[in-house]
Amino acid sequence: MKQLRVGMIGYKFMGKAHSNAYRSVPMFFPDALKPEMVAICGRNEAAVQEAATQLGWNESVTDWKALIARDDIDLIDINAPSDAHKEIAIAAAKAGKHIFCEKPLALTLSDAREMLQAAEEAGIVHMVGFNYRFSPAVKLAKKLIESGRLGKIYHFRGWFLQDWILDPQFPLVWRLQKDIAGSGSHGDLGAHIIDMAHYLVGDIAEVIGMSETFIKERPLASEMTGLSATGSADGPKGQVTVDDATLFLARFENGALGSFEATRFAAGHRCTNSFEINGSLGSIKFDFERMNELQVYFTNDDEDVQGFRRVLATDPAHDYMDAWWPPGHTIGFEHTFTHEVLELANAVAEGRQPEPNFRDGVKCQAVLEAVDKSIEERRWVPLSEM
Amino acid sequence: MKQLRVGMIGYKFMGKAHSNAYRSVPMFFPDALKPEMVAICGRNEAAVQEAATQLGWNESVTDWKALIARDDIDLIDINAPSDAHKEIAIAAAKAGKHIFCEKPLALTLSDAREMLQAAEEAGIVHMVGFNYRFSPAVKLAKKLIESGRLGKIYHFRGWFLQDWILDPQFPLVWRLQKDIAGSGSHGDLGAHIIDMAHYLVGDIAEVIGMSETFIKERPLASEMTGLSATGSADGPKGQVTVDDATLFLARFENGALGSFEATRFAAGHRCTNSFEINGSLGSIKFDFERMNELQVYFTNDDEDVQGFRRVLATDPAHDYMDAWWPPGHTIGFEHTFTHEVLELANAVAEGRQPEPNFRDGVKCQAVLEAVDKSIEERRWVPLSEM
Amino acid sequence: MKQLRVGMIGYKFMGKAHSNAYRSVPMFFPDALKPEMVAICGRNEAAVQEAATQLGWNESVTDWKALIARDDIDLIDINAPSDAHKEIAIAAAKAGKHIFCEKPLALTLSDAREMLQAAEEAGIVHMVGFNYRFSPAVKLAKKLIESGRLGKIYHFRGWFLQDWILDPQFPLVWRLQKDIAGSGSHGDLGAHIIDMAHYLVGDIAEVIGMSETFIKERPLASEMTGLSATGSADGPKGQVTVDDATLFLARFENGALGSFEATRFAAGHRCTNSFEINGSLGSIKFDFERMNELQVYFTNDDEDVQGFRRVLATDPAHDYMDAWWPPGHTIGFEHTFTHEVLELANAVAEGRQPEPNFRDGVKCQAVLEAVDKSIEERRWVPLSEM
Amino acid sequence: MKQLRVGMIGYKFMGKAHSNAYRSVPMFFPDALKPEMVAICGRNEAAVQEAATQLGWNESVTDWKALIARDDIDLIDINAPSDAHKEIAIAAAKAGKHIFCEKPLALTLSDAREMLQAAEEAGIVHMVGFNYRFSPAVKLAKKLIESGRLGKIYHFRGWFLQDWILDPQFPLVWRLQKDIAGSGSHGDLGAHIIDMAHYLVGDIAEVIGMSETFIKERPLASEMTGLSATGSADGPKGQVTVDDATLFLARFENGALGSFEATRFAAGHRCTNSFEINGSLGSIKFDFERMNELQVYFTNDDEDVQGFRRVLATDPAHDYMDAWWPPGHTIGFEHTFTHEVLELANAVAEGRQPEPNFRDGVKCQAVLEAVDKSIEERRWVPLSEM
Repeated sequence: MKQLRVGMIGYKFMGKAHSNAYRSVPMFFPDALKPEMVAICGRNEAAVQEAATQLGWNESVTDWKALIARDDIDLIDINAPSDAHKEIAIAAAKAGKHIFCEKPLALTLSDAREMLQAAEEAGIVHMVGFNYRFSPAVKLAKKLIESGRLGKIYHFRGWFLQDWILDPQFPLVWRLQKDIAGSGSHGDLGAHIIDMAHYLVGDIAEVIGMSETFIKERPLASEMTGLSATGSADGPKGQVTVDDATLFLARFENGALGSFEATRFAAGHRCTNSFEINGSLGSIKFDFERMNELQVYFTNDDEDVQGFRRVLATDPAHDYMDAWWPPGHTIGFEHTFTHEVLELANAVAEGRQPEPNFRDGVKCQAVLEAVDKSIEERRWVPLSEM
Repeated sequence: MKQLRVGMIGYKFMGKAHSNAYRSVPMFFPDALKPEMVAICGRNEAAVQEAATQLGWNESVTDWKALIARDDIDLIDINAPSDAHKEIAIAAAKAGKHIFCEKPLALTLSDAREMLQAAEEAGIVHMVGFNYRFSPAVKLAKKLIESGRLGKIYHFRGWFLQDWILDPQFPLVWRLQKDIAGSGSHGDLGAHIIDMAHYLVGDIAEVIGMSETFIKERPLASEMTGLSATGSADGPKGQVTVDDATLFLARFENGALGSFEATRFAAGHRCTNSFEINGSLGSIKFDFERMNELQVYFTNDDEDVQGFRRVLATDPAHDYMDAWWPPGHTIGFEHTFTHEVLELANAVAEGRQPEPNFRDGVKCQAVLEAVDKSIEERRWVPLSEM
Repeated sequence: MKQLRVGMIGYKFMGKAHSNAYRSVPMFFPDALKPEMVAICGRNEAAVQEAATQLGWNESVTDWKALIARDDIDLIDINAPSDAHKEIAIAAAKAGKHIFCEKPLALTLSDAREMLQAAEEAGIVHMVGFNYRFSPAVKLAKKLIESGRLGKIYHFRGWFLQDWILDPQFPLVWRLQKDIAGSGSHGDLGAHIIDMAHYLVGDIAEVIGMSETFIKERPLASEMTGLSATGSADGPKGQVTVDDATLFLARFENGALGSFEATRFAAGHRCTNSFEINGSLGSIKFDFERMNELQVYFTNDDEDVQGFRRVLATDPAHDYMDAWWPPGHTIGFEHTFTHEVLELANAVAEGRQPEPNFRDGVKCQAVLEAVDKSIEERRWVPLSEM
Repeated sequence: MKQLRVGMIGYKFMGKAHSNAYRSVPMFFPDALKPEMVAICGRNEAAVQEAATQLGWNESVTDWKALIARDDIDLIDINAPSDAHKEIAIAAAKAGKHIFCEKPLALTLSDAREMLQAAEEAGIVHMVGFNYRFSPAVKLAKKLIESGRLGKIYHFRGWFLQDWILDPQFPLVWRLQKDIAGSGSHGDLGAHIIDMAHYLVGDIAEVIGMSETFIKERPLASEMTGLSATGSADGPKGQVTVDDATLFLARFENGALGSFEATRFAAGHRCTNSFEINGSLGSIKFDFERMNELQVYFTNDDEDVQGFRRVLATDPAHDYMDAWWPPGHTIGFEHTFTHEVLELANAVAEGRQPEPNFRDGVKCQAVLEAVDKSIEERRWVPLSEM
């Protein structure tokens, strides 16, 4: 196998991020299995054709089932709206294609489990798009914890704070509709910090949550681009059917205490995807708005010079950075996808599952639903119930 | 009335902070009613005498009941260990003395209510020691919220993170014993952020919490000074009977969502008493380790220059700062007490209740106990139950 | 003209950055004139062939003169070592090719002037590679100054601090040899802050400088990659013939005062390319290690909320950012080159000179040499002397 | 000797800071020689009497010569305007009084030298008020350098940036008049960073500077309080006779390179008294607006966790902090004076000279004047010329 031949379904925000990653791996990681950008698929023929040209795909198609059936495709990349994930993924698995599916894996836990089962039965390679794991600063966090340099973990605090729908006149885009998006800030943003907690701290034993929809009606929307959209304040309104903010407390299986918050109503926070972890030997802090940095504290530093260090994770000692630029020359959001695709390519080449894969997607979904249940029933929900 | 004649019971960490405040008011706020440091009271005669000399009190005594009975005392300052607050306060109220009581007001809500009732029946002036309200940066926060410059409040996040007992060999000081301290990080640290939330956001409707004692046994302690103490790792051990960490979620009566965390196990955090508030028109952030600063964000700033401002609250436009040094010349922890005593002196002079007073102490205690109840019964507890 | 057909000479650190930029413009700025990566040129046939494959060039060649002579090339990109710039640029201009030349434009002011003259006589489009101008945060700085929002400028402070040769055993790479590099930290790093000062504040009237070579001998080097290299501590040593650090004071023609420092001996600074500008109405601060941010202060903010704002320049209101990701999703070092190539492509398409062009390269070189002269002659040197 | 009986001349900004220090030493450093606040002296009888009451002096007087002659005074504290320092100090020395003189020691180097000579001939204890040395964070800086933990020093960068006269209508207060103040930002602010450089890096070999008075005329002033004053924009104007900003480059005797800047025209900087030092083994950064913090970098930290540490210098491991509050509880501007007076009291008790003393004042004045000379003569001036 010389190439990883990709067919991608979806071509908006995530489609662009994935395309750039496929394109960048050969240039910056020339030893990796090379992604070949075979075909891109969408419902609107003109729009997907334009996307193909702009994003560098050889071909554009509109029938995803036909795409899955093709012999010249090794991997199906799913970044269509969340409600389409399940059907496509199961079909792709049955067709023996490897799968790279954006998060959330599915709208419900039972859907996610079906997808995992299909993937495992088909014996394919499967990956889920928790891209934030692939910041070099986060990789450093993982290394510090795994090697024991932070000791026993006591606390995890995670936030994903945004403010793009703070304006009550911001229209009712698909991300605010439960039937398409499945969830609001909880599934969109919370999912990332839940995965981060799983990755860095471990499994969660029980949760209890709280959520709110601050603005209950919004103008109907026209088109959405990235996180922008237009609507008319005077026009008709529709019901917001997802949460604007969800918070929850968690107890990890290893005894650590967790606090999670996802909101789109935090003025001034464009994309504060942030966490802090406290252990018996040290602490770390991360904020995606300064994604090249990890704040690190060690209790065994000399008494007079103890303090959080601002580690700029751009040195050769940091994962991936040898492939980019000299120390101090930072990378950005899109690079997390390049590293993610690198992990995927390596996994395919090595015949192993990448991390994070559908198991991680299912585990994240279980926590999301346990939190929803805890909110509905106003009680602690153990994950064992799910 | 030309002077406020003070008798103070207690002479350790808080006694020193209060003494400094009594001493500083006349120098920096010469127009205020002047505190007269009449007598300091403690059980150990030699120690309290030494404290009197060092801290600038005219006299030292060992019998607090006699102190309360004296005619030449207007105000009783209570900063003895928490378990002594109630008896002293009620006696002082009955003797018609004004009272300045350190937090927590009492070990239980019902005790706190008795104290409030006694104070109100006696018609005295009463204050409780939530000193962090008196940072000029916090006063600015209050002003921004009250004047509507942050709009409707959606989120409150509060943390009080310390690390002074992270070492399992740190001894079993009184602050780790429930019968004396009443509570661990919850009552000691959490109380401050609860009061801050009350002050800035409003009343809390319901809560659910989680707590943990990470280190369950510790060496027996000898003496405690400030937050330091000595003990022997080889010696006998005792049970830690308070929480090392307590977290809770809260819903405010005005619809805002709250997240609270108090812990003594956050490595690298000496005194991170911190909060963030998000409203419809802006946000603010505060961290006591940089107590002269308030981070402020406004949604109506010009589109291309929106961002959190680091406001150094040392200008004449900021409360109290005219009395100290020129702009940019910072103040420290102890100044919060000076401003607190100023408020107390002004309240006495003006014949009104200061803020925060026993009502605030009771309200804080109610939340503390509601959280404890929610932990015990593993359910949301409405404050109306308390 | 549908495409901008590029022939590139050089394929190391800068060759990679430029290649990525040519590749990225069509994807992220699809309306721009499209760069076509025709041929890459280098002396080592095998190495340049490998680079062509990895970096995405259609062809690799070893004879730069033949490359310049080709009809299917519109633009010559020069990022070979600095001592080769002049000969190539003049030849390319004579052949009627547009030129994109990395900084420093030349080793001497008189060489730079010859290059500018050749370019102007040939009527070609010419650009010089001061890429840092193209951070969106720097573009915001420019906009704030040009629109008068900072008022009259009083102060410019610029630093470019690195630490990659702090170790005395770091070998004697080409960047430490005057005959190849022309200059040390002064020409390599200082050039960037001089250009930034020209861009943001204006022309410099006079300068006086100071420089030092802290480590005067180093092990002979083998190969250099990025800013890394290997050498043997026990092997033979050679003379360092460039400056390790150069500082200078400057007076601008508009009366502002400037302070400049470039050093490779600032421990802990991987790439602190930073400046601060103070005007009568406000101030700005920039640090390339946090390149998505600009700190902005306005004197006319309300009295109680004055402070530096951390503007994350990732909103649609910020140059280029609409083309990338949603607000809060940051970009990195390489993006400055993409924006630079965009300006170049737009200039070619519009038949105008891009900024910065060879005039800026000459102006920068004049300041570099004036500083050198001021160091040699230990006196203030007016730019009019150059 | 049981007490240090003080007579203080001057009662404005510095008089208040000194008074607070005398008052605080016995409370927080009870083992030190105790200052006794005997008498305060000023020309305006009513004002000085009011100051005595407010600041806690036993007595107020108006004749400084009579004060110096008294037997019940051990120490003369001089914080009158700068033009009065010399006459008072020499008289006090001749009367055998110890002297604590605010900076600048004198208006000229020759005056400063006369004062030093008088003090040495009289065999008295003499101190000069470079209070910033006494931040615990600065003490930590000193310790790190002296113990070799930063290695050989390559760079010193110092700034003292303020903005209190940025408004052209700010009146012509005494600090803007050369005959009273001696100098503008150079002597007022620059003096502090020069002393800091002397303290931390060592003696300066040669300098070259540049200065500017941006606003050359201002409204005549009435009264000055702290750094505030009032004047009428429509009223008469007077000439500003001091520098608004002075910058200079320096070469230290040990080979380090220095850059210094003092200005009152840096919008947004209320009191940025800041420095950075780079050595072969590490770096430190300090900013007085966050005076409890020192940023520390070590080259020998593990490769993957190198970064500047934010050390909060409030631990018992940091000078003086044991005497104040628990770790994380910060101190402010005024505490530097308390520590300064502690050093003075200890020096008197131990029969030694404190640091900094008149020798340091003279050394600072020599650099100030060398810079002035270098500006006037537009050339490098070696300190040996002074």
